[in-house]
Amino acid sequence: MSLYVQKFGGTSVGTLDRIQSVAKHIAASYRQGHKLVVVVSAMGQQTDELLEMALHISSHPPQREVDMLLTAGERISMSLLAIALNEHEVPTLSLTGSQSGILTDNTFGNARIRRILGDRIREALQLGKLVIVAGFQGMSEQEKEITTLGRGGSDLTAIALAHSLKADRCQIFKDVDGVCTADPRLVAKARVLTEMSWDTLSALTSFGSGIVHHRGVHLAKKYQIPLEIRSSFNFSTAGTLIGSHRKVEKAQVYALTHRQNLSWICIHACDFSGLAPVLNHLWTLGEHPLFIQQHGRASDQGLQLVLGSKALAGLESFCKKKWTQTRVEIFENNLACVSLIGDGFWLEPQLLESAHQTLALEPLLIDCKNNVINFLLKESDLEKSIQNLHQAFLEKP
Amino acid sequence: MSLYVQKFGGTSVGTLDRIQSVAKHIAASYRQGHKLVVVVSAMGQQTDELLEMALHISSHPPQREVDMLLTAGERISMSLLAIALNEHEVPTLSLTGSQSGILTDNTFGNARIRRILGDRIREALQLGKLVIVAGFQGMSEQEKEITTLGRGGSDLTAIALAHSLKADRCQIFKDVDGVCTADPRLVAKARVLTEMSWDTLSALTSFGSGIVHHRGVHLAKKYQIPLEIRSSFNFSTAGTLIGSHRKVEKAQVYALTHRQNLSWICIHACDFSGLAPVLNHLWTLGEHPLFIQQHGRASDQGLQLVLGSKALAGLESFCKKKWTQTRVEIFENNLACVSLIGDGFWLEPQLLESAHQTLALEPLLIDCKNNVINFLLKESDLEKSIQNLHQAFLEKP
Repeated sequence: MSLYVQKFGGTSVGTLDRIQSVAKHIAASYRQGHKLVVVVSAMGQQTDELLEMALHISSHPPQREVDMLLTAGERISMSLLAIALNEHEVPTLSLTGSQSGILTDNTFGNARIRRILGDRIREALQLGKLVIVAGFQGMSEQEKEITTLGRGGSDLTAIALAHSLKADRCQIFKDVDGVCTADPRLVAKARVLTEMSWDTLSALTSFGSGIVHHRGVHLAKKYQIPLEIRSSFNFSTAGTLIGSHRKVEKAQVYALTHRQNLSWICIHACDFSGLAPVLNHLWTLGEHPLFIQQHGRASDQGLQLVLGSKALAGLESFCKKKWTQTRVEIFENNLACVSLIGDGFWLEPQLLESAHQTLALEPLLIDCKNNVINFLLKESDLEKSIQNLHQAFLEKP
Repeated sequence: MSLYVQKFGGTSVGTLDRIQSVAKHIAASYRQGHKLVVVVSAMGQQTDELLEMALHISSHPPQREVDMLLTAGERISMSLLAIALNEHEVPTLSLTGSQSGILTDNTFGNARIRRILGDRIREALQLGKLVIVAGFQGMSEQEKEITTLGRGGSDLTAIALAHSLKADRCQIFKDVDGVCTADPRLVAKARVLTEMSWDTLSALTSFGSGIVHHRGVHLAKKYQIPLEIRSSFNFSTAGTLIGSHRKVEKAQVYALTHRQNLSWICIHACDFSGLAPVLNHLWTLGEHPLFIQQHGRASDQGLQLVLGSKALAGLESFCKKKWTQTRVEIFENNLACVSLIGDGFWLEPQLLESAHQTLALEPLLIDCKNNVINFLLKESDLEKSIQNLHQAFLEKP
């Protein structure tokens, strides 16, 4: 008897109809004899709506209170799904993060999972019950406070539970059919990949793909947890299976991903004391710059970054608090980065050259690793470039 | 330094504006040097909305899941109020029912409080913090499940906390100015009473007034907890103080209350085995019949009841499951009961007579106790009758 952890995101449980449709599928999986642990996100945009309410009252709401507030969302979706499964006569136990024994540190808003007790989950599975777990949340081990795991935390909950419970597979249900060779909105011939290595998924999510949250991917890769990424709108499609790959000594492009709305900036300062505080600030916001370069000495110091334009808000005021006479100069806005995700690129130097040639225009920057090639472009060149690259590397001649 | 427990109901925290207004008042109370524990209900109609979602999915949702679902409402209002108080720089700790140590039995949907630990509340108060507690909810002592206390449960949470913490006063904030001599929508000259005994409040809430939930009143009366019932829309009014009364040997009418939408019915059965199962069914629904009479023997047995018409739904099918050939006969719908609430009525027999004479029309039933006189009337006679009674007993000549 296999144990599956199934995760359903906000869109998958966005309406009462969606919850009923998902329940029907889960009930069918249960009847097939699988042991199931189901992790749910809050319905649709509820997390954002709750957060907006908090921000309406206060521009700096205490994070402890925000965490308590946001966890209400998963309580609601979890209970409703349990009610829907009861209609299918599936014996079901729903558990919050703390009831599941998901113990975290006390970093409100972005807590790290320390360990998972899971006693109540195991007991319920033993009794033949299906278990629903509220995603995105836990309880701090020492302080017994309710914490949240940060955005995308429900993916992390599912993958961490799959590890802790030694599940046979973790199935992430999405509003897309699986992991694609490129964004189907930009590339008409983009197709769903049937399989992929953890490394490839990790590279994809590092360079723009939001298919699974990168913290979850990190865990899955570390503990080699078999992942399945598939559709909750089209249960008959198989989706993408993430596992170990046959390693051959050959350069191969598996997929394209991209980021938009990037800026190339320079932080100027006279008494610049290193990039660590700036990066710390950006990472806390969830922004990991694509390009970082420090230059200059004495009175002409600077830090060049290519980063998401959203992260610019507040950056200058942050720097001004740290260093006198700081100034943030924007070299260029409306940039994009297209990434070739693959393997063994360094084995075939001509691969970079042919990729370079297929671009619509000369890139502003190139960054080439063994498993990823990044081209920084003007946003206006993105669509054509990604289509050309897809045709050259991912469509059959 | 006085310790006050303040309770704000759904209407009082119904919008973000209301939450901010309430926070402003609470902050002012805090600055006056009071120790404060604030109990909140869910925002506006949220409890009903969540319940409707559950009932959309299932006509009989499992009560454990419904309890978990509904508690999300108070989590949201509690967190938002804490965020609003933080804006006023009031050091605040918000706690759910289980975090507060409100331990209950395991009766989902209508749990009874067994005891209150309150350690985290006391610690926080000791540190000078204001404490917000999510009303309506607790955790079962043995099973560690999230439970709700039934409708009106937030009043109960506040009053039980006031007892457990030995508070100097429990303030129930409402959308009205206090306890009135009669319903102001029916009686233009109805006025707010400045004080009242627990007995009188208890009688009022037993015969129709919903000003405070009767379970809370029961506790307040039992432990003689000073209650203040006042407005959250008009903080300058003093409201009604509930405490012990000067007892004098004199008949006195303090206030009128009423119930509408009543039905007079008879349950016929051949093999009727007593009223206990029927009353048990009705009490579970929160319906306490005003009049109960059993009659007949052998093949002509019956149970006459005057009860809220809402409770009729499902009554016949309940009875048919218990006894063969049961039939529910409705003698009369659209009835109302007007109640004179007071004290020492039996000392002055003429009081009943003069009350009787002031009615608009002959009542269908009269029920007279030392502290309450009930008249059962046609609903169409209610308004005139209550106005006449108010003029005769509660307006100065």
